[in-house]
Amino acid sequence: MDYETPQFYRVMQYAARADRDVVDMVSGSPDWDPPAGVRAGLREYADGDAGEFQYAPSRGVRPLREHIAARHGVSEDRIVVTNGAGEANHLAMTGGLEGFDGEEILLVDPVYPYYAGRANFLEAETTFVPVDAEGRLDPQAVRAAAGSETAVIVVNSPNNPTGAVYDADAMAALAAVAEDTDALLVSDEVYDRFDYSGRVASALDCGSPNVVATNAFSKSMAITGFRVGYAVFPPTDGPTGRLIERATTRHMLTNVSGSRPAQYAVQRAIETTDSSYYEGARDRLRARIETFCGALDAVGAVYTRPDGGFYVLVRFPEFPGTFENAYRLIDEAGVAGMPGAAFGSARADSLRFSLTTPRVETAAERLVDYFG
Amino acid sequence: MDYETPQFYRVMQYAARADRDVVDMVSGSPDWDPPAGVRAGLREYADGDAGEFQYAPSRGVRPLREHIAARHGVSEDRIVVTNGAGEANHLAMTGGLEGFDGEEILLVDPVYPYYAGRANFLEAETTFVPVDAEGRLDPQAVRAAAGSETAVIVVNSPNNPTGAVYDADAMAALAAVAEDTDALLVSDEVYDRFDYSGRVASALDCGSPNVVATNAFSKSMAITGFRVGYAVFPPTDGPTGRLIERATTRHMLTNVSGSRPAQYAVQRAIETTDSSYYEGARDRLRARIETFCGALDAVGAVYTRPDGGFYVLVRFPEFPGTFENAYRLIDEAGVAGMPGAAFGSARADSLRFSLTTPRVETAAERLVDYFG
Repeated sequence: MDYETPQFYRVMQYAARADRDVVDMVSGSPDWDPPAGVRAGLREYADGDAGEFQYAPSRGVRPLREHIAARHGVSEDRIVVTNGAGEANHLAMTGGLEGFDGEEILLVDPVYPYYAGRANFLEAETTFVPVDAEGRLDPQAVRAAAGSETAVIVVNSPNNPTGAVYDADAMAALAAVAEDTDALLVSDEVYDRFDYSGRVASALDCGSPNVVATNAFSKSMAITGFRVGYAVFPPTDGPTGRLIERATTRHMLTNVSGSRPAQYAVQRAIETTDSSYYEGARDRLRARIETFCGALDAVGAVYTRPDGGFYVLVRFPEFPGTFENAYRLIDEAGVAGMPGAAFGSARADSLRFSLTTPRVETAAERLVDYFG
Repeated sequence: MDYETPQFYRVMQYAARADRDVVDMVSGSPDWDPPAGVRAGLREYADGDAGEFQYAPSRGVRPLREHIAARHGVSEDRIVVTNGAGEANHLAMTGGLEGFDGEEILLVDPVYPYYAGRANFLEAETTFVPVDAEGRLDPQAVRAAAGSETAVIVVNSPNNPTGAVYDADAMAALAAVAEDTDALLVSDEVYDRFDYSGRVASALDCGSPNVVATNAFSKSMAITGFRVGYAVFPPTDGPTGRLIERATTRHMLTNVSGSRPAQYAVQRAIETTDSSYYEGARDRLRARIETFCGALDAVGAVYTRPDGGFYVLVRFPEFPGTFENAYRLIDEAGVAGMPGAAFGSARADSLRFSLTTPRVETAAERLVDYFG
């Protein structure tokens, strides 16, 4: 599988060229407004002194780091503010490959394609652990797959594309696997504000020196274009304390620092955004899940209702999730989803629909008409 | 030499803790205002639709790419917009190491420390070609040093720290060395708007398939904190046409894309900034060069008047440019400069002073008092 060319571009381009109206359920970009503080922060920044336009500290502006430290209950010296979760995952995965024995990265199937693409790019071996029928990852299956060659285990909860949420017990079990096999658990928690189950847990709560958690404001504040994320590395006084040094050097030699207007806007938005913003986003998505899953039930589709995140993986009767069928669905039903094959083999028969469109109801009606 | 810890932090921190007023001539951040269009662009962006806050195209927003293509007379498919010149140089240097035979990177001594730091980080062999007495790089010296092991040659004109400007003949000679030794010439042209000689030339004008030029708006628009730069790769239909594919993949897997508010602000500033802005910045720096070099003449210091850029490398009589002497100058004269040793061995006896402070006259007076 060629992970290097993002396959969702192909589907998005096909949808854009279609001869009819299409509901885009391919991209994972929120369609709702960022918190007002993001816009206000940018305006404030625009009026700042010339000095404010110069290099941010390489690890990120101070108030932002302080907030991240407080939110996760970790010390600031464990944090690198990155160019989105993408760079955070890059620093974590490269750090794991360098800092631990072995050349193997364990990934979950279905997989967020950037993890697999990066693993290939870094010339790591990849081993995929398939999820169970409900889309859940069994930590014992990870344990069975991990071995002396394993350097990194990457997990993502709430999960893209399955919608699964790993609870505190699952996270602890995964951290234990990492410790027992001398590997690094990279826990991508970028959807943590989109938990509908009440069970979401951060891998940081395990207190393990074998955990790096990554995150970003991209999804939670609906600003995927700003590129403000972060990685939380293990405590600097522990056995893996040097991981953050190397990551900081890599970050500095690659990017020097993150973009300061974006960091400033996020920092101001944090200071002025209360929990009702995140609750509102969850309510919006809960309603969309309700609408969309209602249509799926009506046509007898097989799916797991998402416990978190933005996505629903769906198996329509006699309509496997190939690229060909994704294109057919665009042309014949006016709904664009991602072929499951883009996420590995375990769900190659499904299509992934992103709920980040205000037109979920239209999509639901079209699917009922088409498959009903 | 430990390039991984930016040594200028040490000097800046020492200066910040000093018990007296100190003129900071260490950092290379412009002290003047960005073009009005940068601020206006940020405000406009802040008022945009929610969709504008989502992912930019990975290679950069379209109008910005169009401008870069037009400015350099190249096609858009050769351009990757990056997280500043830092990432542009990273993509170019890694691309050269992967795409050409050999493990060696040729650098100029004195060297901008990030080039050497990155080469070390990438585990490349480094060979340094010293400049001549006037700070000029002799292309024949580069030719003599280059061999079958050479994969990458990195040059920077106008130069940090020497202030030298390489003209079209020098650039052509350097590109010819790259072609003849099957290597990639990485030409960092980030100071190209700060040419006082009228001789500055882009390596792109050589039309060589062995050239990548890097640049940024960081210095020219006084926005080092925005992180908007770019790399121009060789034509995609030539023998090195695949370099940009790999660089694009690396960029995508590291950063996904650059920060969109920053790219938007730069794009709007380009559209609204005329040549008088850049002329004004050059006039300001010419006046500072005049003032500063006058003081250097008065105390019998040895230096080369900069043909371009922001910096003056100075050898004071009986005062070699060690860290110890840099600290002494802070404490005893109230002027902070960078020890030459931070840039390699060729100018280890000098100190580098950055003219990016409104207090050049105060610094000049203090140096006359101290050394006079």
